Amino acid sequence: MSQGTKDIITISLDAMGGDNAPASEVAGAVETVRSNQGVNIILVGDSGKIEAELSKHSYDNSRIRIHHASQVVEMHESAADALRKKPDSSIASGLKLHKSGEADAFISPGNTGAVMAASLFILGRIANVSRPTIGSRFPTERGITMVFDVGANVDCKPLNLLQFGIMGSVYANSIYGIDNPKVGLLSVGEEKTKGDALTVETYELLEKSNLNFVGNVEGRDILKGSTHIVVCDGFVGNVVLKFAESVLGILKTKFSDYAERGFLSKVKVGMAYGTLKDIMKDFDYQEYGGVPLLGVNGISIIGHGRSTPRAIMNMALKAEQMARVKINEKIASQIKDIKDFVPKTEK
Amino acid sequence: MSQGTKDIITISLDAMGGDNAPASEVAGAVETVRSNQGVNIILVGDSGKIEAELSKHSYDNSRIRIHHASQVVEMHESAADALRKKPDSSIASGLKLHKSGEADAFISPGNTGAVMAASLFILGRIANVSRPTIGSRFPTERGITMVFDVGANVDCKPLNLLQFGIMGSVYANSIYGIDNPKVGLLSVGEEKTKGDALTVETYELLEKSNLNFVGNVEGRDILKGSTHIVVCDGFVGNVVLKFAESVLGILKTKFSDYAERGFLSKVKVGMAYGTLKDIMKDFDYQEYGGVPLLGVNGISIIGHGRSTPRAIMNMALKAEQMARVKINEKIASQIKDIKDFVPKTEK
Repeated sequence: MSQGTKDIITISLDAMGGDNAPASEVAGAVETVRSNQGVNIILVGDSGKIEAELSKHSYDNSRIRIHHASQVVEMHESAADALRKKPDSSIASGLKLHKSGEADAFISPGNTGAVMAASLFILGRIANVSRPTIGSRFPTERGITMVFDVGANVDCKPLNLLQFGIMGSVYANSIYGIDNPKVGLLSVGEEKTKGDALTVETYELLEKSNLNFVGNVEGRDILKGSTHIVVCDGFVGNVVLKFAESVLGILKTKFSDYAERGFLSKVKVGMAYGTLKDIMKDFDYQEYGGVPLLGVNGISIIGHGRSTPRAIMNMALKAEQMARVKINEKIASQIKDIKDFVPKTEK
Repeated sequence: MSQGTKDIITISLDAMGGDNAPASEVAGAVETVRSNQGVNIILVGDSGKIEAELSKHSYDNSRIRIHHASQVVEMHESAADALRKKPDSSIASGLKLHKSGEADAFISPGNTGAVMAASLFILGRIANVSRPTIGSRFPTERGITMVFDVGANVDCKPLNLLQFGIMGSVYANSIYGIDNPKVGLLSVGEEKTKGDALTVETYELLEKSNLNFVGNVEGRDILKGSTHIVVCDGFVGNVVLKFAESVLGILKTKFSDYAERGFLSKVKVGMAYGTLKDIMKDFDYQEYGGVPLLGVNGISIIGHGRSTPRAIMNMALKAEQMARVKINEKIASQIKDIKDFVPKTEK
């Protein structure tokens, strides 16, 4: 164990946020402590409901405890409303446990907007970070590609995109062990001059930075895995992420339509779809363990509302890893370095 | 034949633009006149090379003629350079034939930027159109979905997006026979307030318009086919289009990787890939006949550089259809109607 690292990382888990709460969250917590010695869990939410779920499992009760929170943020509630009207939500309470130091990280399969807003409000930002960002891994032909931002910031300035590149690079380096991660700027052509007003200006900043900036990349480069980090504003990142998540849906529909054409088609589709599913493991969000919110002064990971127990466990393990590598210290030190060359108006 | 429509539609075809020029273009022209009585073709480009290709085919030589053009715009040449330095390019010459009335439409599998710029310069805009737009069809679970804009305009104002919606609706109605096409605004959430500065303002304009506007749609709605028309700026539209075009590539790679795991895997992949290819016909750009450039005062369609003869023929037939339904008269009349409620600053 490296110097200054805790033996046990404690994670506060929003047990009320997912579509199947708190069953998936509780099962995920149990699976986590059962198969990992280094992580304890605090389940945050309605203690009665959580206890009822916990009673269905056998587990080491020194490693999972419950922290009661009386309110729940619904999936489609506005983030601002949730913050204002539900101070004792499982999201706010879970983040406060992290802020106070009782927990080393926070994870939630709940309302993305609410988790982002509450994380920013309760944990604050790392010094010099203008806007925190969420990044998502995409399946690729080869290697790892993460897109930053995928929805935290819809209207961005060049400085924001530069910082997404820095935070993303730190993440790829510390979590995936990638040396000097390649960074691409998402645009509509390879040339420096191709793009919109935002990307053309951002190109200049990225070029001057210490990042391993390789230039513009296009929509097709994400799945090709051309760069480890793809930088864009959260509007286009969110559109592409949701588009990508819908690809399996259309393939499934087309396969079903094809199967209905006759017996032989049905047999062929059966084989094809089985193979496809096998191949599609890379597209399985559960493996990736949620999207990290980088730039807040703490560790906060957001998962899909439909997270399974395995997805919850992978989120917990990702949070553990982020805590152990002290990712925020690295982000703070990298972000500090750029102050010098950013135009004053950008700050 | 409806009143005022010509018996024969003449199409000027840029024979030098594609990756395999002029072989694909010539073969496409021959295929077009052979299987369609209503279309004649003018092949525009290097007459020597075109004649050499034509001599390999037998065809009715009253229906295909050559118009010599001495210059060729390369695929990666800047549009501005091409316009300025190559006044006798096959693109410019082909468009001039259309402008003069010798041809009723122009099609090109060449440099997209150069075709857009030259079309705008030579044909001009339809009255009251602020910016012409290119739209692409996407495969969907059910029905037809076209995204406007996919790259003609990277920095847009709300009025531009409103006009994309109008032109797209006219296209879907006149070309695909869709009554009152559903229009969605691409954004990051369904609520009116979700989005960036551009989409929030555009929402207001679309709401007040005569379009069948159904509200915001998200990245996942494109492949679902939730609306007939999806409106967005050309930056995000281009990123999504190129992302979509790359999906088959990653599936192919994953299938190959899987096949290498062993004999049974190989057999399964063989069947699966065959089925997939069958199913993927919907993803075949060749079927769609290129992307139309709407808003210019003429008919201009841009195809993939790698257009096959069949893709060229489908472009020609799409151009014929656009000419026969007099699509630009419809666009002009619909665009005129919006003048009243658009803020003065937008004009």
